[in-house]
Formats: sequence, structure tokens, C-alpha cells
Amino acid sequence: MKAKILDGKNISEQIRQELRVRVDALRILGIQPGLGVVLVGDDPASRSYVTAKERACAETGVYSIETHLPVSSGRNEVLDVVRALNQNPAIHGILVQLPLPDASMERDVLETVDPDKDVDGFHPVNVGRMVLGLPSFWPCTPHGVLQILSRSGIPIAGAHVVIVGRSNIVGRPLANLLTRKGPLGDATVTLCHTRTRDLARHTLAADIVVAAAGRPMTLRAEMVRSGAVVIDVGVNRIPDASRKSGMRLVGDVAYDELVEKTSAITPVPGGVGPMTITMLLQNTIESAERHLTSGKLSRPPCAS
Amino acid sequence: MKAKILDGKNISEQIRQELRVRVDALRILGIQPGLGVVLVGDDPASRSYVTAKERACAETGVYSIETHLPVSSGRNEVLDVVRALNQNPAIHGILVQLPLPDASMERDVLETVDPDKDVDGFHPVNVGRMVLGLPSFWPCTPHGVLQILSRSGIPIAGAHVVIVGRSNIVGRPLANLLTRKGPLGDATVTLCHTRTRDLARHTLAADIVVAAAGRPMTLRAEMVRSGAVVIDVGVNRIPDASRKSGMRLVGDVAYDELVEKTSAITPVPGGVGPMTITMLLQNTIESAERHLTSGKLSRPPCAS
Repeated sequence: MKAKILDGKNISEQIRQELRVRVDALRILGIQPGLGVVLVGDDPASRSYVTAKERACAETGVYSIETHLPVSSGRNEVLDVVRALNQNPAIHGILVQLPLPDASMERDVLETVDPDKDVDGFHPVNVGRMVLGLPSFWPCTPHGVLQILSRSGIPIAGAHVVIVGRSNIVGRPLANLLTRKGPLGDATVTLCHTRTRDLARHTLAADIVVAAAGRPMTLRAEMVRSGAVVIDVGVNRIPDASRKSGMRLVGDVAYDELVEKTSAITPVPGGVGPMTITMLLQNTIESAERHLTSGKLSRPPCAS
Repeated sequence: MKAKILDGKNISEQIRQELRVRVDALRILGIQPGLGVVLVGDDPASRSYVTAKERACAETGVYSIETHLPVSSGRNEVLDVVRALNQNPAIHGILVQLPLPDASMERDVLETVDPDKDVDGFHPVNVGRMVLGLPSFWPCTPHGVLQILSRSGIPIAGAHVVIVGRSNIVGRPLANLLTRKGPLGDATVTLCHTRTRDLARHTLAADIVVAAAGRPMTLRAEMVRSGAVVIDVGVNRIPDASRKSGMRLVGDVAYDELVEKTSAITPVPGGVGPMTITMLLQNTIESAERHLTSGKLSRPPCAS
């Protein structure tokens, strides 16, 4: 068996096409969706993520503004920037790029973001609403995983999904979304992690395995049954002397082995990664649409 | 094998002993924990739950006041009562007995309860904080299940727990709590529900099965491996001509079969049921203690 490659770039582009139509519809009403990005410090990975997100905004017709604060910024400086974005009517979504140089302020910062502009879906009230099945912003990476499955025609309802990794940004929200009633849900989910005994016993039983452990080669061929679907959420940089950069990007799974055994698999890069940014765009556009229906119109400077 | 009966009444009484010590310590500081109970309408089951909760308060030294509203009460009347309790400094916990006669107002009512007094743990912000591993009030029934396991010496960390039922008040929060890092957590959890295919395949793999499906005889002997632990969260009233009341209480599991096969099992009644009220008391007392440490002292009328 040779797996179908689940092309996240391609699916991403389909969704962005749909999003452009929604942006056009908003423009007719005098509204441009706006994303406020907050970057603290000069971490190169964070810088490159922010640049990619801003580029995606521009390509989709979403207005974005970036506030770049020095690495030494104090809690109150960061909170003040977030509060100003909360008040800014041209901004429908707020993204604070993580990790912050001072991790101890992350909680305060994330909880200061207006839940109605929390397009990352990290505010506790959005997490709670998601778990309870109420309207909320879904976290971008888990939502991207659901879109890949759904748009590739892989049945989710009734499937047994085994998730490896219990992070607050991937494994845990994905488990909650997959077990909800209704579209993109109704799966039976097993959540595994570092304290799981005999991980292979669980992954071997799965129709779909989602690897989100943050460690290369977590999932090997002998741990997955033939014909299963594998979604690789990992983003790991490992040394590679053959590359100019001296390193390359790998996921959490033994791709070369699994591509021979699974029925479908996401590559890294080009799988889940592009979907995350796309779902961020979608949340921002949805926020602008909600704003409209709640009667609170906003007119960003560049829309006239 | 004959199962150890996990006696929820007994464990409950142990915990209430500990709680009385905490209430005494608060009393020395001039504080009595206070619970505000809101009952709408005259449903006999709701009435009897409220009475049981108030009796448990009295026995543990917790002050309670009940507001009983007529079945015809409108949304604003119920919300006004909740808002008054939010403002009342003698009240540390608020309990709105569910279901409300008008189910459409439940969401509004639960979201109006001050999260700092939400001792049922139903407010989205408390659900979100629980999922994210932040301090919050844990929902009472799932917390009761964890206490039964832990106080009976049944290892949770590393165990494979299969939960049958994905309700917002039991299955879903329990899955989130069991997979958290740290005490009472670190379990590998499979969440099953009505859309699960081949339920028995999942339950047979479990070290611990939690039945919270709301349907009698959901779990039969052939669905559980010999020596497993079974926790029965079900509370179903079925006809029984041999009883004066014409009915009796049964759980979600085939108790008579499973008691011969499992290593430990909770009975119904007398298992999880008593624990739920005890965890409500614990949350109310904890709320009063938090109030103290945050410097906001409260003096209920009966403390002098």
C-alpha cells in the first residue's frame, strides 16, 4: 500500500479561495477584517511565523497591523498593547505570538485578549465554550486537522482516533472537538501522552492516529495498523549537514516507513502547518462577520 | 473473583470529617461558608436533591439559603436572583438546581453566576480553566469519581480509563481531568458515546470503566475484562412492583454480573451519588478559604 499524501498546502489554498469570497462580501459592506499581531522580542522562529501570518493576511485581503515590542518589555507594556487592540474597531482578531520571552506573563496576556477577538482560541472562556459545544473560536491547529480529514473525505464520525500528545494547543482541544456531537465530531477518541503505558497498543487500535508529541520518530511503522490514516502535527528542526541551513524540518512520525503502510498521511512540511495559518485567517474573517451581525460595524482605515 | 465494593457513603463521610475541620478553622476567623441555592418550579426530583444538599450543608457547618421561584418565572427574575447572590458577601457558592423548567434560559443563567462562586464548575471560564490546568472549581460528579478511585487506592496515573458517555457534566469534564498532568491525573483516556462503534472492544481494553451513559444495563459482564474496576455514575429510576414507591434506583451497569468479575465496583445507590454533594460542600468551603486569602472577608449573619 502506498499512502495518499494529504496535501495541506492544496487544501489550504481551497479554503483561502472560499475566504476571499467572504472578504469580498464584507468589502461591499464597507468592512475589511483586521488582525492585530503582537510580537515581543526577536526570536527568529517567532519572527518568521509572524511574517508568514502577515503575508497570508495580505494575500487574502485581511488588514493586519503588527506591534513589535522589545524583548525587555514588561507585563504592563504588553497588556497595554493588547488592551488598545481590544478597543480598536478596525481589529477583529488579536494574535499574540508565543512563546513570550517572559513565559510568566503569558497567562495574563492571553486572558486580557477580548474573547470576542481571541482568534487563537486560547482564552479560557473560548476553551470552555468549545468543550461545552457553544459557539467559540476553535484553536487553529486542531481545526486545521479536522479540515484536512474532512476535505480529504476521511470519515470522522464513528472513527477511533488516537491522539498522541496532550498539549493545550493541539492534543487536548483536538480531543474535545473530535468527541463533540455533530459535523467534524462524533469520533471515539483516546488521548495518549508521556505517561501512557504501552503506547503502541493504543495506536495499533486506531483508524486515525494524530501525532502531536513534539518529538521526532514518536510514531513508527510497527505502531500503526495497515491502512490507518496518520496526521503529523510535529514541527521539529533536526541537524542536516546536506542542507545549506544545516538543518531540516521533520514531524513526529517516521514518514518514510509510514507512507508504505498507511492509507493516507500528511507530510512535514506541507501538511498541517499551512492549515494553521489558514484557520487563523478564517477565525479573523468570521469575527468580522459576527461583528456585522451583532450590529457593531467597524471600518478599518483602508476600507472606504 | 468478588469485587471490592467502593462505598461512596463511607468515603464521603471521611471527606466530610475533613471538611468540618476546615469549617471550624474558618469559624475561628469569623467566617462561615455560605451556599446560595436557587430552585425554580416544583419538580419532585429537583426538590429532593435541593433538600439533600441543604441537609448536607447543615451537617457540615455550611450556611445555606434557598430561593424558591415559581415554575412560571421569567429569565430576568431568575437572573436577578443570581445577581443578588453574586453580590451577597455571605455567599461563597451558588447552586442553580438543573434542569430549569425553561431549558432555554439555562445557558444565560449559568453564565451569569460569578465564576468565583461557581461551585458547580459549569461556567465556561471554569470549564476552560479546568481543561487548561489552571485553578478552577472542578465539577462535582467527576471530582467525586476521582476521589473514590484515589481514596480506594486504585492507581489513576498510567491507567487506561474508558468513559462511556460524553455529557458536559460527567463524561467530558472527567476525561479532561483524568488526562491532566499531576495528582488524580496522568491517565490514558478513551471517551466513548452513542456514536462509538463496537463499544465492547473499547471497554474490554480498560483498566477502569466509568459508565455515565444515562441508560441502565449499558455495561454488561462480557464487556469488561476480569479484574477491571467499574465506576457507575448512572442514576436511573425503573419500575419495581415489589417496592412501596413502585420504583427503584439503578445505575448504568449490570451490577449483579459485574460484581462477580471486577476487582472493585461502585454500587447504586451509595456509590458516586453521595460524593457529588460532598464535592459541592468542598468547593463551597474552598471558595470561602480563597475569599479569605484574597483579603475579601465575608461575615454571614449567623457568624458573630
